[in-house]
Amino acid sequence: MAGDRAASWQSIRDTIMLRIRDRTYPPGELIPNEADIAAEFGCARATVNRALRDLAEAGFLDRRRKAGTRVIEAPQRKATLEIPQIRREVEARGQVYGYRLLARATGPAPEEVRARLKLPEAEATLYLESLHLADGEAHMFERRWVVLRTVPGIASADLAAVSPNEWLVREAPYTHGGIACHAEPAGQAAAAALGCAPADPVLVMERQTWLHEAPITYVREHFAQSYRLCLGL
Amino acid sequence: MAGDRAASWQSIRDTIMLRIRDRTYPPGELIPNEADIAAEFGCARATVNRALRDLAEAGFLDRRRKAGTRVIEAPQRKATLEIPQIRREVEARGQVYGYRLLARATGPAPEEVRARLKLPEAEATLYLESLHLADGEAHMFERRWVVLRTVPGIASADLAAVSPNEWLVREAPYTHGGIACHAEPAGQAAAAALGCAPADPVLVMERQTWLHEAPITYVREHFAQSYRLCLGL
Repeated sequence: MAGDRAASWQSIRDTIMLRIRDRTYPPGELIPNEADIAAEFGCARATVNRALRDLAEAGFLDRRRKAGTRVIEAPQRKATLEIPQIRREVEARGQVYGYRLLARATGPAPEEVRARLKLPEAEATLYLESLHLADGEAHMFERRWVVLRTVPGIASADLAAVSPNEWLVREAPYTHGGIACHAEPAGQAAAAALGCAPADPVLVMERQTWLHEAPITYVREHFAQSYRLCLGL
Repeated sequence: MAGDRAASWQSIRDTIMLRIRDRTYPPGELIPNEADIAAEFGCARATVNRALRDLAEAGFLDRRRKAGTRVIEAPQRKATLEIPQIRREVEARGQVYGYRLLARATGPAPEEVRARLKLPEAEATLYLESLHLADGEAHMFERRWVVLRTVPGIASADLAAVSPNEWLVREAPYTHGGIACHAEPAGQAAAAALGCAPADPVLVMERQTWLHEAPITYVREHFAQSYRLCLGL
């Protein structure tokens, strides 16, 4: 540790995390007490306390007032994934992002979409088909339904200029939602847009979001075959 | 709020999070000060402070000592995914987990695997093929290479009784790694194991883990077609 600057609680947390992962602090065993860790890092006990609390909340440590702090035997590791805001993801790879609106229509949604969003049969939705490009190449093809009752403003949005993704991020708050990924044959529409064969396997990401009880949108994103959905461990 | 029990910082954080998401607290705007929030929830200011700190660390709030706390305009939403410990994932759905070791061999790894793990050409690896079952049905087929230099103990492990996944979780600590998902045709081996056609699209999850500089394992997991990789938003 640098002598003149105390360690941050985050750096202490990260160091302890590495020691748990490489079993310097083995599963089920007590780790040193706060005072000893504070002495090692030359920082306040409160800083160590903050680091240990974070690791306990993340499920790696079990803290008992009198018995001390133990490494949990079989923690569930979590991987985190930045929700791909498609423009940022493309730009982060140093590529030029592009977008094309391919189709736009208003009407009831297909039964499968209605079931997911719990929509009555006649409920009006805005259907959008769009293609996202990276360096001019097809990157992702999306088919989206937006519930007009929840997001009436999108009816008058210029979605040839701004993608529905970006419009919704800016204009349509949500409280919760879900993502599911699977593989399927591209099918006619996605194959035509992505420039592959209809039978070629593509990664499909389905997403839906809600504002409290009100459904906002359901989207099926078909990714180009070279795409990898990456997560850190 | 219940009158006789103060709100936890987590419940305050979750309530504020919902207000950010539904734009009760709009992007770019100041939120009420700590004292006002504490009065609303009938709790200590320190509790509110803890909740706001958490949201600031998660990238939703910008806290300035004199200017107050603002909602960040375009936060990057993060989705978290429990690393599927395959047995737990199957059991969590109320299904009976099963496992079969299909093949086991020692030798150098194929070039593609060596490149990922940065292995010299002759480096000895343990190759394992296994099938994971849910209620007796094929759920996931995996092909795995384990670097014997890093994990020598696996050479004498009874991997017919304990899956390599569970053995490694218990015995082989790691410091970091990565996951990537894509779609591809099942191919002969996975198709035979999963009971689909070789051309059928399947979700493939590749994982690799490291202990500091030492490579531990690279695994390619092929999931049955009905599988959905699910994440919460």
